[in-house]
Amino acid sequence: MADRRFFKVAGPFTLADIAAIAGAEIARGDPGLPLCDVAPLATAAEGELSFLDNRAYLRDFSESRASACLVASQHVDHAPAGMALLVTPRPYLGYALAAHAFYPERSAETGVATGAHVHPTARLGEGTAVAAGAVVGAGAEIGARGRIDANAVVGPGVRLGDDCYVGAGASVRYCLAGHRVRLLAGARIGEDGFGYAPGEGRHVRVPQLGRVILGDDVEVGANVTIDRGAGPDTVIGDGCIIDNLVHIAHNVRIGRRCVIVAQVGISGSTTLGDNVVIGGQGGLAGHIKVGDGVRIGGKAAVLHDVPPGETVLGIPAVSRQQYWRQVIALRNLASKKGKDE
Amino acid sequence: MADRRFFKVAGPFTLADIAAIAGAEIARGDPGLPLCDVAPLATAAEGELSFLDNRAYLRDFSESRASACLVASQHVDHAPAGMALLVTPRPYLGYALAAHAFYPERSAETGVATGAHVHPTARLGEGTAVAAGAVVGAGAEIGARGRIDANAVVGPGVRLGDDCYVGAGASVRYCLAGHRVRLLAGARIGEDGFGYAPGEGRHVRVPQLGRVILGDDVEVGANVTIDRGAGPDTVIGDGCIIDNLVHIAHNVRIGRRCVIVAQVGISGSTTLGDNVVIGGQGGLAGHIKVGDGVRIGGKAAVLHDVPPGETVLGIPAVSRQQYWRQVIALRNLASKKGKDE
Amino acid sequence: MADRRFFKVAGPFTLADIAAIAGAEIARGDPGLPLCDVAPLATAAEGELSFLDNRAYLRDFSESRASACLVASQHVDHAPAGMALLVTPRPYLGYALAAHAFYPERSAETGVATGAHVHPTARLGEGTAVAAGAVVGAGAEIGARGRIDANAVVGPGVRLGDDCYVGAGASVRYCLAGHRVRLLAGARIGEDGFGYAPGEGRHVRVPQLGRVILGDDVEVGANVTIDRGAGPDTVIGDGCIIDNLVHIAHNVRIGRRCVIVAQVGISGSTTLGDNVVIGGQGGLAGHIKVGDGVRIGGKAAVLHDVPPGETVLGIPAVSRQQYWRQVIALRNLASKKGKDE
Repeated sequence: MADRRFFKVAGPFTLADIAAIAGAEIARGDPGLPLCDVAPLATAAEGELSFLDNRAYLRDFSESRASACLVASQHVDHAPAGMALLVTPRPYLGYALAAHAFYPERSAETGVATGAHVHPTARLGEGTAVAAGAVVGAGAEIGARGRIDANAVVGPGVRLGDDCYVGAGASVRYCLAGHRVRLLAGARIGEDGFGYAPGEGRHVRVPQLGRVILGDDVEVGANVTIDRGAGPDTVIGDGCIIDNLVHIAHNVRIGRRCVIVAQVGISGSTTLGDNVVIGGQGGLAGHIKVGDGVRIGGKAAVLHDVPPGETVLGIPAVSRQQYWRQVIALRNLASKKGKDE
Repeated sequence: MADRRFFKVAGPFTLADIAAIAGAEIARGDPGLPLCDVAPLATAAEGELSFLDNRAYLRDFSESRASACLVASQHVDHAPAGMALLVTPRPYLGYALAAHAFYPERSAETGVATGAHVHPTARLGEGTAVAAGAVVGAGAEIGARGRIDANAVVGPGVRLGDDCYVGAGASVRYCLAGHRVRLLAGARIGEDGFGYAPGEGRHVRVPQLGRVILGDDVEVGANVTIDRGAGPDTVIGDGCIIDNLVHIAHNVRIGRRCVIVAQVGISGSTTLGDNVVIGGQGGLAGHIKVGDGVRIGGKAAVLHDVPPGETVLGIPAVSRQQYWRQVIALRNLASKKGKDE
Repeated sequence: MADRRFFKVAGPFTLADIAAIAGAEIARGDPGLPLCDVAPLATAAEGELSFLDNRAYLRDFSESRASACLVASQHVDHAPAGMALLVTPRPYLGYALAAHAFYPERSAETGVATGAHVHPTARLGEGTAVAAGAVVGAGAEIGARGRIDANAVVGPGVRLGDDCYVGAGASVRYCLAGHRVRLLAGARIGEDGFGYAPGEGRHVRVPQLGRVILGDDVEVGANVTIDRGAGPDTVIGDGCIIDNLVHIAHNVRIGRRCVIVAQVGISGSTTLGDNVVIGGQGGLAGHIKVGDGVRIGGKAAVLHDVPPGETVLGIPAVSRQQYWRQVIALRNLASKKGKDE
């Protein structure tokens, strides 16, 4: 049960409700069975819904006290007696959808809180809430049902679509964003790109005249930095998810539904296709092209273009096969040397 | 002498006062000798206290003009004539304690400053100060003698113990913290974990229903991110110290007194024992177990469980011995190749 | 053309004006030709100024519709007919200077905005603007024409020179800064260094009694952290440029005009000479000396002193020559192994 200090649960829902929400079929159990919460298998109690997605938890499943469980058909035989079963090929997705039903986004109070600073020329859509200490600049436009959290800053002229969220202390400038964009606390969108011309004994800053364009459903983690373009724009495609402390430099163009794990850095003017996945702390050189569906390992250093569909890792990055060959070859070499000496 | 613009010195203290505070013995000098400040050996002047902890500074020690010095017994012979000597096996610890006496935490003004926004249902302990621009949400509870610095955000329902500090622009949500917890500027505690279920052509966010639990005496550096749990909690044990720009993902559990240096990343659901040390820019994979007392080198990539007491480094991480063997083997191989060609 | 929602263009300027501003010579074209904006070669339209700095764009140059172009003398032959030509050995520098003329820093409104909190003992220079939600502490001194952006925090006693900028939500404490210093959004200057003395079963924090000293023309990226010194100061020399999410620990001393790319980490008490360049995600151990003009590769781990003028890369860092020999030797070894088995 989620801590009632922080989370307000909706429901209850019936087994049939959850089946519909989660896109699952009732394989066992009373469609009218009431379910009042979600919980992990190991801690779920009577009246709660759980899920089995990873075989590693088969034992927890067979011992779980959950009243109902989302599960793939091949695992139903391990269910304890009396547990209602909702069968789906994607139990984790089903769980995510059910959990959204139990825990809808809290409808913050709407309107401009005392202590918020909204410029008179800014426009707020219906149902949009601006919390204490938040600042919304001249000419900014925020769509319907937006939430600008405490001490966030929305710069002059910024446009956010409907259902957007700007977290505590985050800032967004020089940016046009789609719908359902979420910027978590401390994210920095639209700061100056790192562009300098070598001058006589000094670095001359080059005015950064582009923007940041965020597609629909883009999620940006805490303390992430996405710089605006130098002239062209920095573009993040629909449905990209970006973890905490990632850096994306000016002029980078990222396709749709990419997954960028924490502390990754992408250098200027590099382009990514759709569905690229980059593991934590990976780094990409500037001015390179990474194709659709490429997977880049954690900590990898990608210095050159990567064709669509490839998996690369290592420093510098090579194919997965080559990488593990190198790791093993070096391990063997070191052992042999150890013996020789 | 610390810059009086920023630091206010207490004292003076006598040599005997400092001996008691630092847990040291007077090996030489008048117990009534007045000491008015602390300073490094090389720049200390008359009336100031210094310390020798590292043999590399033996020469500075023997030439220092400090009036008194904290020193281990084996180094007293190198002291200049006339210097009062406080002997202790741990001079650096003694210095830390003495420096706290000379520079106690500034007692900020107490109460809620003009321009702070404290929800009427929030509760503040005795002597707690909330600075201009800070926001404290509904139902939050902050213990005694707390300091919430300018533009910090304490979310609804958050509970902080006594003597806690939340730095400028930091934010803390969905969190229960012990006593003497310090969150430096820009730290982001309790944001959404990075949890998504693969859906039909999109990533479906999984509601993150856990909390962040911080033990007593936890110190969190600037711009760190610690995500709340997905269902279980994210837990940081008593006395952990975490440097700047570290990322700690959802469901991570960290034992007591761990030391996590800057820019480390710890992936989801990984557990650490007590007294683990992780060097700067290290990375840990998800769902692994790191035992008590493990030491992980800077930049290491830890992909598997590490038994208690081991030291690992490298990418991927191996034992220290194996790591250096590999470095040397590769160096030799490259030199040989160079010669052959 | 930059988005008028965010950028206000100055001008127009004549070809002769731009030649003077950019330090270029008119090689072709009417000195009175009016120019109304800057743009990349590929998208420039009539009336716009562009530049050619990189041979890779020679084709764009020869097909560009820009009315005028900054170009090196050796490339003028590729210019399309009718394009006015401004010749200079450094076209990118010329572009930067011209772009500053077209897009001068927006003269924010001056004075203290409603909702800003400036302590009565703080002093603001002529023309300095403090935006909504910004907090300026007791005794702080900000020079002329400064801009303190929304929700930024300038701590007590801090001194900033003329023409300084503190970005949205950034914070600066215990700091003395020169002129023309820019701290982008979320930068954290002057937080506690990571200094602890091992005590009896706990880490005892060591009071950090130094400052951060920033030279003239220092630029600090978004969400960067620069800790104040432990006793000595942390010092960043004139003209250094620091990209996003960099960490600089206490007591570090950096010379002039260094270039530090995103996500670099520099450990405590390390010193850098002038004109050092560090690639993205590089890491430097503590207490080492890096000479003038050293170049450190992206992701490198520098564990020892580096003499002036050297280039090092790798983990651990070695000379460039040695690094590539190692990469190739390992690649060959892995291929051979693959064949042998």
